[in-house]
Amino acid sequence: MTPEKMASEKTAVEKQGLTTDSRARKPRSEGTPDNPLAAELTRQLGSKKVLHHLSERLNYRYDAIQFGVTPLCVVLPESTADVVAAVKVARAAGIPIVGRGAASGLSGGVTPLQESLVISFTRMTRLEVFPERREAVAQPGVVTLKVTEAARPHGLFYPPDPASFRTSTIGGNLGENAGGPMCFKYGVTGDYVKALEFVDEGGDVHRVTREAFDLAGLLIGSEGTLGLMTEATLRLIPPPKFTRTLMAHFAEVGQAAEAVSAAIAAGAVPAKLEFMDRACTNAIEDYLHLGLPREAEAVVLVDTDGNDLNTVDAELELVAQACQGAGGVVKLAADPAEADALWQARRSISPALGRIRPQRMNEDIVVPRSALPQVVREIRALGDASGLHLVQFGHIGDGNLHPNIMFDPRIEDEGAVHDLAHKIALVAIRHGGVLSGEHGIGTMKRDFMTDAVDPVTLQALWNVKKALDPAGSLNPGKILPEQPGGPHARP
Amino acid sequence: MTPEKMASEKTAVEKQGLTTDSRARKPRSEGTPDNPLAAELTRQLGSKKVLHHLSERLNYRYDAIQFGVTPLCVVLPESTADVVAAVKVARAAGIPIVGRGAASGLSGGVTPLQESLVISFTRMTRLEVFPERREAVAQPGVVTLKVTEAARPHGLFYPPDPASFRTSTIGGNLGENAGGPMCFKYGVTGDYVKALEFVDEGGDVHRVTREAFDLAGLLIGSEGTLGLMTEATLRLIPPPKFTRTLMAHFAEVGQAAEAVSAAIAAGAVPAKLEFMDRACTNAIEDYLHLGLPREAEAVVLVDTDGNDLNTVDAELELVAQACQGAGGVVKLAADPAEADALWQARRSISPALGRIRPQRMNEDIVVPRSALPQVVREIRALGDASGLHLVQFGHIGDGNLHPNIMFDPRIEDEGAVHDLAHKIALVAIRHGGVLSGEHGIGTMKRDFMTDAVDPVTLQALWNVKKALDPAGSLNPGKILPEQPGGPHARP
Repeated sequence: MTPEKMASEKTAVEKQGLTTDSRARKPRSEGTPDNPLAAELTRQLGSKKVLHHLSERLNYRYDAIQFGVTPLCVVLPESTADVVAAVKVARAAGIPIVGRGAASGLSGGVTPLQESLVISFTRMTRLEVFPERREAVAQPGVVTLKVTEAARPHGLFYPPDPASFRTSTIGGNLGENAGGPMCFKYGVTGDYVKALEFVDEGGDVHRVTREAFDLAGLLIGSEGTLGLMTEATLRLIPPPKFTRTLMAHFAEVGQAAEAVSAAIAAGAVPAKLEFMDRACTNAIEDYLHLGLPREAEAVVLVDTDGNDLNTVDAELELVAQACQGAGGVVKLAADPAEADALWQARRSISPALGRIRPQRMNEDIVVPRSALPQVVREIRALGDASGLHLVQFGHIGDGNLHPNIMFDPRIEDEGAVHDLAHKIALVAIRHGGVLSGEHGIGTMKRDFMTDAVDPVTLQALWNVKKALDPAGSLNPGKILPEQPGGPHARP
Repeated sequence: MTPEKMASEKTAVEKQGLTTDSRARKPRSEGTPDNPLAAELTRQLGSKKVLHHLSERLNYRYDAIQFGVTPLCVVLPESTADVVAAVKVARAAGIPIVGRGAASGLSGGVTPLQESLVISFTRMTRLEVFPERREAVAQPGVVTLKVTEAARPHGLFYPPDPASFRTSTIGGNLGENAGGPMCFKYGVTGDYVKALEFVDEGGDVHRVTREAFDLAGLLIGSEGTLGLMTEATLRLIPPPKFTRTLMAHFAEVGQAAEAVSAAIAAGAVPAKLEFMDRACTNAIEDYLHLGLPREAEAVVLVDTDGNDLNTVDAELELVAQACQGAGGVVKLAADPAEADALWQARRSISPALGRIRPQRMNEDIVVPRSALPQVVREIRALGDASGLHLVQFGHIGDGNLHPNIMFDPRIEDEGAVHDLAHKIALVAIRHGGVLSGEHGIGTMKRDFMTDAVDPVTLQALWNVKKALDPAGSLNPGKILPEQPGGPHARP
């Protein structure tokens, strides 16, 4: 922790009417909590559901990519009733509330920006599968992968597969409307939600389906700024019987983008269609030594799937021909083990990049596929000109790219990082694209919203926010840029 | 028109400061419009875009199923700018605004409930297909079928297929989030919308994608109560290469529901899975003489589709076995012509029912598939007990049923019709279902919303409505039941 951060900790604790000394004397005391908020929550929920020591609270200020302000208190609810109680206590105290899943997010969605109550849903892990209805009912703390694990014995699965699906939770996936490689063919988290339960800013519980006035759809992807989702009814589907995998590499990034466009134009609907640039491939090689082609400027990974092997093979062949036509070298995975090794490369991007620099700024732009060659080249040129370490990868089938700027805040200028990130966002917008495909806006891309969304629409979004959270107590500072006149100034 | 309706017309005209006499003297005059609203709209938009004569306005008071109040004026915009101008004029005059497509809706979504400005989008028919992006950009007046017709030469199609797709418009489909038989496998209108342009209640134009705070998703299905959609970017997909069709009939309605559950449990994902009861089949036979089995208590129509003929046949065989296992008699369509004849039966339900009684109350409940046998039987029993003419059909694969009460308001009690409709809605809710799968709530099911949605959630929906339409000028009286204290009472 930096000295500045310690100083702000001290201020936080002092605001609660306690001295730094008293805190120092009982670093992990089981006694009375350090602040009135924690004391009241402990009184109502019991000490096992409330974390109030600084050493504990420090763990709840970050997501996978960004630091925030250490929360005043953390509640670990075990039921919707616990969430209701926590919301009511925080509201009465005028303390903001930040919901949190596994914190594997990549946009700062769960990092508190003020002294807040963090509600961490990791203990709400009830999961039931209803095979006849092809549904699962999941609490927000259920790890994403567990849904498919529970569904598989019934011949069903849950398609949304963010790279972090072994650790991420359904609640976090709902909050960010998470995607993943399979989402090109199968759709994102929100496409699989049939009903939601949520707790609003006042502590009232709502159960909503996807009828007229799709309140459920509004909450999905709203990063906990409109309500706290406490249960989801998820749609399950039968898994495809067969999957085939190929990798292709290219001497130039634009060729990869052209191959993708050609394959899709030829009628292929791959289940997954992923892209990694040379910097990305080399980061993975340094980390895992999988034998990826280090010299290639671009690598594309493709799955086709379905219930008929001939069709699945034919579709993969269409992709292979498109890759070769664009100048690529194609390698088909000989068996499931080889396919799995290739996909392990894709899933390892995040940890691999973490070894290059301690921090990164992760973009999530989506551009029309036809603009991909030009966009990838422009972003590469911006990265080269900046002198910063830039890698590109993403779900290229969707036009969803993740340019990542790797940096060390001790030796590199964060202003320059932000500036490059802004330029990349502007490239996407200029080519008819959007800021976020699956990671959410969070804090990371919030400043770019004024470039991407016109003022009257931002005002409409603020009006919706105020309609559902009039006091602005739910995850303040996320998604929407501040309005002139203050965060909750009425127009 | 009934004498009562004429009387209310007179009041409407008189409110505009004109006598019945002056109207009678110039029934189709090309001169100055009859009322100040029409005069100002004509001044701004020109007379060719404004309908103000009673004989013209009378055509804009109904949808496919329900009558409303004759509008004060009708605008036929040709551009988003025209819509903006019309909204600003109506707002300045304090007149409500009702958007309207082909008016083929089945829930009263476009019937004015007050003296209103109707904005009829039938002239906004610009449609462009972007094959490389697999997208179509459509104005709201584009007829649904035209999207697929324009996409087909590029090897693409647009799946949502409401029964009225030869006449319904994209704008109306967006307003009601319309479904159709293919939606079981392919999803509803909202699943194919990538971006929207809409005009808000103040006349500001918004362009929104499906990012965080999914404003587009909120507008879809909101029946014009939150904004007027003026353009949609629609996702297109490659059509399946092969389709196979079967019909099965059953001696008892519950058997049909059981067959459907068994087929889906066995792993079949039919493209379409439709159900018609005996009353429905007989209505179609009386109308078209297609040779449907009149004695069967239930008929099921099924399509399977895909790119591999063996798989498509195998999937149809799974369905056939499930139908036979439940006691059904199966007939496979020998060729596309036979398949088309079977589907013609399904598409003809609405006109066929129109011959039985002049009016109908059309429900759109969705229940868990496992509850279908019980729900279908309970509704049949309610119909029999009521003495009213009840037919049942629907997208049984989704659990989406359309119980229809046919009645003649001259000889049958509308109170009894409403009472039966309410009882049917309560059956759906008791079995864990919802009120509307694809037709919207409109006016028809608005009163049942208090049974289906709890008070705190209704309040949240009202808060969202007020956030985007503070004066309540957009399609007032639809979807949300009035609050105690008046339609726009703040809590």
